[in-house]
Amino acid sequence: MTETPEDRFHVFDTTLRDGAQREGINLSVSDKLAIARHLDDFGVGFIEGGWPGAVPRDTEFFRRAREEVPFRNAELVAFGSTRKAGVRAEDDPQVLALLESKAPVVCLVAKSHDRHVELALRTTLEENLAMVADTVAFLREQGRRVFVDCEHFFDGYKGNAAYAKQVVSAAHEAGAEVVVLCDTNGGMLPDGVRDVVAEVLAATGARLGMHAQDDTGCAVANTLAAVDAGATHVQCTANGYGERVGNANLFPVVAALELKRGMKVLPDGALREMTRISHAIAEVVNLTPSTHQPYVGVSAFAHKAGLHASAIKVDPDLYQHIDPEEVGNTMRMLVSDMAGRASVELKGRELGIDLSGDRALVGRVVDRVKEQELKGYSYEAADASFELLLRAEADGAPVRYFRTESWRAIVEDRPDGSHANEATVKLWAKGERIVATAEGKGPVHALDRALRVALEQIYPQLAEFELVDYKVRILEGTHGTESTTRVLVTTSDGKSEWSTVGVADNVIAASWQALDDAYAYGLLRAGVESQE
Amino acid sequence: MTETPEDRFHVFDTTLRDGAQREGINLSVSDKLAIARHLDDFGVGFIEGGWPGAVPRDTEFFRRAREEVPFRNAELVAFGSTRKAGVRAEDDPQVLALLESKAPVVCLVAKSHDRHVELALRTTLEENLAMVADTVAFLREQGRRVFVDCEHFFDGYKGNAAYAKQVVSAAHEAGAEVVVLCDTNGGMLPDGVRDVVAEVLAATGARLGMHAQDDTGCAVANTLAAVDAGATHVQCTANGYGERVGNANLFPVVAALELKRGMKVLPDGALREMTRISHAIAEVVNLTPSTHQPYVGVSAFAHKAGLHASAIKVDPDLYQHIDPEEVGNTMRMLVSDMAGRASVELKGRELGIDLSGDRALVGRVVDRVKEQELKGYSYEAADASFELLLRAEADGAPVRYFRTESWRAIVEDRPDGSHANEATVKLWAKGERIVATAEGKGPVHALDRALRVALEQIYPQLAEFELVDYKVRILEGTHGTESTTRVLVTTSDGKSEWSTVGVADNVIAASWQALDDAYAYGLLRAGVESQE
Repeated sequence: MTETPEDRFHVFDTTLRDGAQREGINLSVSDKLAIARHLDDFGVGFIEGGWPGAVPRDTEFFRRAREEVPFRNAELVAFGSTRKAGVRAEDDPQVLALLESKAPVVCLVAKSHDRHVELALRTTLEENLAMVADTVAFLREQGRRVFVDCEHFFDGYKGNAAYAKQVVSAAHEAGAEVVVLCDTNGGMLPDGVRDVVAEVLAATGARLGMHAQDDTGCAVANTLAAVDAGATHVQCTANGYGERVGNANLFPVVAALELKRGMKVLPDGALREMTRISHAIAEVVNLTPSTHQPYVGVSAFAHKAGLHASAIKVDPDLYQHIDPEEVGNTMRMLVSDMAGRASVELKGRELGIDLSGDRALVGRVVDRVKEQELKGYSYEAADASFELLLRAEADGAPVRYFRTESWRAIVEDRPDGSHANEATVKLWAKGERIVATAEGKGPVHALDRALRVALEQIYPQLAEFELVDYKVRILEGTHGTESTTRVLVTTSDGKSEWSTVGVADNVIAASWQALDDAYAYGLLRAGVESQE
Repeated sequence: MTETPEDRFHVFDTTLRDGAQREGINLSVSDKLAIARHLDDFGVGFIEGGWPGAVPRDTEFFRRAREEVPFRNAELVAFGSTRKAGVRAEDDPQVLALLESKAPVVCLVAKSHDRHVELALRTTLEENLAMVADTVAFLREQGRRVFVDCEHFFDGYKGNAAYAKQVVSAAHEAGAEVVVLCDTNGGMLPDGVRDVVAEVLAATGARLGMHAQDDTGCAVANTLAAVDAGATHVQCTANGYGERVGNANLFPVVAALELKRGMKVLPDGALREMTRISHAIAEVVNLTPSTHQPYVGVSAFAHKAGLHASAIKVDPDLYQHIDPEEVGNTMRMLVSDMAGRASVELKGRELGIDLSGDRALVGRVVDRVKEQELKGYSYEAADASFELLLRAEADGAPVRYFRTESWRAIVEDRPDGSHANEATVKLWAKGERIVATAEGKGPVHALDRALRVALEQIYPQLAEFELVDYKVRILEGTHGTESTTRVLVTTSDGKSEWSTVGVADNVIAASWQALDDAYAYGLLRAGVESQE
């Protein structure tokens, strides 16, 4: 096989295999296909898809991925184990299933910790070495590229370095392209990783990779330390998903290699897609994207300190370690009572409203934000509600397209187990009183539909609006069902999205407020003139 | 001043000052006092409380902390700035406010990056050195211990190392006890930190500290690298709270120093309180504790891989980097369709139910969990619902104390802006049909109260139950208000707590299920015999 430039350094993603071990993640085959597409788009070199043969969903994944995903950058990798003790590799059904997956690359997990060999695998140290060598050799004969993950390598190395190195050599000599040192229990710190990688490289001459878990909070640093010591293959997961605390997070690892170390490990332009890819994968696995994730979190380049806010106007580069656009993120100024006037001005500028000339207006906006924050509102993630507040202060009157007289939502659980959700709204718009009733899947959905029924004739633009996200946050977790509730709603008109907030002592009333703002903002943006 | 053993290494916490910059955190004075108590309990040496004089809430905090908090381990630290350019330190009201706070220690922020001096501070490099020296000297004369935070130190060092070192020397020579090198923009990696700290230590002889931000995901490793290079003072925040991505997380830093480096940086027994302290502080700042935080997250020692689950039965120490009890955490087995039989058995053992002899039962439980997970249920955080499921399979009949005929919840927004929340339940218990109606602050609260009204005469134990936490998770964030909703409820009987789950297409119906399970489990635990 000729070495391509991509082969000089391997970015190996194991979100679909090791990442899926995270508490709370449960991926369907379609989820896995969607994530594989995103990872390939991003440009990783290898995508470990799962364990064909052992996990039926993974067998299915490899079949469908082969047929349905036109990979442009990545090679698919099947994960599996070395042969069973006392069985020939070519007779082990688990090994044969790896071939049947038709993945061009196989990543074999091998034991390299002597006590794991004896206690978990229950075989001899000798037989384990033969299991590694035989399985690698067999798969190489069958034309597969083979990587070997040495599980529990660093823990094993502490007690029996000689044996751990023998396992590396056995894999290397049998034809494994890369031998990956795994900190499976995640207890290492960077200096220890660097020393062990350097020693193993010197002793074995094998091409080495690093697989770090984040139990000390150092998985990214451990991965970089291994690269500093000569490893040329890194195993990571998107957003650091993984068992227990998680795995080394792909995004800060590749960003550090490219932006801080000047290495080229991804296709041109890939880093600029990183924030989008990170959020898209979070969406598929159905976890809220971590707001505070390095590089890609919505907070990663957000500033709220009043101290900074005024200086950022002078030179933003003095206050950020990289230009957020390099990773597809943006600088944000947060509206919070801590930041005060400078932040409100900057936020206004971000929204295209120049406030610098009107000190009194800025003061009124700051006061109003403080007042609302005390009630539980938060504008940090609700730009549209903030803009409505700002315009209301600027114009002296709220942006409003209808006036609510009253509404009612009923949820009924019937003796046959079915649910009925019905909502009635009574509104005034353009001088008319409108009463409308609708049903929905839940009470908020019913209210949303009743509102549309009431208003669509007057404001046909509403037909374009779609609620694309709905989040509920209980503000006082210690008061059970009596808590204050904050609802964030994201609405789309097909071209762009906006977020609004509502706060009330119950989830339905909070949702109503957020919907009310969502429609007002959407109509404002559509150029409809404010009424009422 | 005589050096106490605690002085040899400083654990300096800045949750109340720098941590409060995190997006979404807004601390009242009482919040700050509560957090200060937790940090002092934990045993940190220094608690930076805020910026007296500049922030009115912080001025108030120092007054009340002095009077109300009997600190056992920590010294209070007031944060402030060096004097203004062209003003004597003793005439600068901001400097005087630091004295007025009566905090025994002052931490001064100083500019050490030449461009920041010129562009943000708008003074000369010479005057900045005088500002540092004068302010330190004045506060030392007034009997304060003084630490100096060199802001943007590492970025400044890249362009003008000589000037950055001059600032360190100016502070050191004027009497600052510690000079703290700050990676304010968070762009450093550990090897760079180690080199710079070693160089500055050699060049200046000053006692050095480290303040790391987490923008590369390496703040913990950067802090440890600084200690390796000779720093003896670390600035951290609880749970890593802080601006943008956050600060170096106190908990993994002290755990690594004590458990991995064998240093003694906290009082005896402190680490065993770490998980509790971390969660208590999250509660005060009103953020959900990060489930995946190193050492203290509920997932930090949780295992769901089927592969591991069977081997963990042999020897748990082969699968964890430390004993979770060392940090006050516990190993958990997760119930998930990925884990299968071994996990269900282990989970049963955790709940005191021996399943090892009944393979058919384990199989039925695994099937049922899979079926429920497909609908959106998750038992990982709902042990009580899992136990009810398990007992239903074991006994062949559900644990049940009443049978629901139907229920209804009405939320009404009246023309005067007030809300009415009313719920009616129709139940059968001990052969009796009961109809009850109640009002509440929201629809779920009303349902909860109606249920109690209906059942309290039959089951007086219900009077002890209190809902202490209520969480809503929208499962398909892309379908707006039509999403599937998962509700988790935590209930207490004053002695212990249990968590239950409900899933439905609307939040009210999901809440009803979780309440239903919560009451069933509470009555089961109270020893009441199952009815219906």
